[in-house]
Amino acid sequence: MVIIGELINTSRKAISEAVDNRDAEYIKKVAIEQMEAGATYIDVNCGNKVHNEVEVMEWLVKTIQEAVDTPLCIDSPNPKAVEAGLALAKCGQPMVNSITDEKARYEEVLPLVLKYKAKVIALCMDDTGMPNTAADRMRVVKSLYAKLTAAGVPEEDIHFDPLVKPISVVGEAGLEVLETIKLIKQDYPKVHFACGLSNVSFGLPGRKILNRLFVTQTMALGMDGYILNPTDKGMMGFIYAAKALLGQDEYCGNYLEAYRNGSYE
Amino acid sequence: MVIIGELINTSRKAISEAVDNRDAEYIKKVAIEQMEAGATYIDVNCGNKVHNEVEVMEWLVKTIQEAVDTPLCIDSPNPKAVEAGLALAKCGQPMVNSITDEKARYEEVLPLVLKYKAKVIALCMDDTGMPNTAADRMRVVKSLYAKLTAAGVPEEDIHFDPLVKPISVVGEAGLEVLETIKLIKQDYPKVHFACGLSNVSFGLPGRKILNRLFVTQTMALGMDGYILNPTDKGMMGFIYAAKALLGQDEYCGNYLEAYRNGSYE
Repeated sequence: MVIIGELINTSRKAISEAVDNRDAEYIKKVAIEQMEAGATYIDVNCGNKVHNEVEVMEWLVKTIQEAVDTPLCIDSPNPKAVEAGLALAKCGQPMVNSITDEKARYEEVLPLVLKYKAKVIALCMDDTGMPNTAADRMRVVKSLYAKLTAAGVPEEDIHFDPLVKPISVVGEAGLEVLETIKLIKQDYPKVHFACGLSNVSFGLPGRKILNRLFVTQTMALGMDGYILNPTDKGMMGFIYAAKALLGQDEYCGNYLEAYRNGSYE
Repeated sequence: MVIIGELINTSRKAISEAVDNRDAEYIKKVAIEQMEAGATYIDVNCGNKVHNEVEVMEWLVKTIQEAVDTPLCIDSPNPKAVEAGLALAKCGQPMVNSITDEKARYEEVLPLVLKYKAKVIALCMDDTGMPNTAADRMRVVKSLYAKLTAAGVPEEDIHFDPLVKPISVVGEAGLEVLETIKLIKQDYPKVHFACGLSNVSFGLPGRKILNRLFVTQTMALGMDGYILNPTDKGMMGFIYAAKALLGQDEYCGNYLEAYRNGSYE
């Protein structure tokens, strides 16, 4: 399972301020905390620093890599920032967040994925807009899978994001995601997944419980990658329990450790 | 979704004593509490009263029906006790817990299911013993489905129990159950499910969290019936949240009510 720590994102006030002050110690601290809490990738997103995103990306990547050797997930809508991050990423295989089947985006991001032999998060969307049904998503999955593999991206390096939308807006939004995961597992058994799930609970109270349960439900269908806050002990506790229930935790070792550490109190 | 309240079972000390003292008020209280907490069936099990099980079953069924009009799930290994319960059950369509594909058990229970037009919980086991894999379970499902429907049991009245075993003993025990649910939904879309899940966590600490998460995971695969304690507010809260995530709760109404009632605190 891939856990992409989401905390180093300049849309978060503390990170934005640390970036503006070039407070390397704070960035390193957040990177280390995520790594220690179980992140297997560290997301780096400074997309709202529109005036100097490339320079900020370079500083963030260098700074994080002075603290941890967790591989990085370079996360930006700006291909120049993605390339700046990838060019400096030196720990393991980097990941790009994200490619889509929108013509312009695809053509900008694909060469970077190939040049840096990166894993890539592939969003189930194209120029027709955001998908509603599982069938809408699978049309994009089929197209992206065919194009990416034909271009030379190994299928194991593709992480599909089924695009989670709020159940408060459309009641079937969660169900369509579960169905998409089932169909992807069935048609493309070697690809992986990665997405943030917190959209599912947008507009409802008790978002934590909904987000955590949706993680365990998607895991039951075969989802194996998440962008989340790994320092959320309750969320990670649910993930460890779900892994034990799914036979992905030998002798329930990680579950028992999480239990001893108070993750279920 | 079918929620079968499990509390009226003489293996529980308080129920056993109430039965021995013919304390009708206590039994009625437990029946009402389960109904109010969301039980759609009330299980009646006095299987350990081996010397007078038939008499106790009759007393329990009459007593419960003086308090609630929730339909009953008559639960016994003894066909005489099953028939005694069914003969008196007058609220809605009763359920029998359970038939199996063991030759003797099948031949004893089938005539009762037909005579009383009862729903029936069908355990995925036969004379070869307890199943290990999903394939073992599906062999029994196929056989029971063919025999029961040929005998005239409507497929909608069959509730398969995929037989949950402890993950502490076999790591893949949960995974095999999820796979069984998926295969049953695929091959027999009109049948239902019913089972107790608490075995999954046997031998581990933190059983509540494992049981609750396994409910939400099995729901994600299509499971729609559980034998459990409906007065466990935390468990029911997880079920309401899971239903909202699965698009089974219009405008998230039940979820919001559970939230207001403190189910997630």
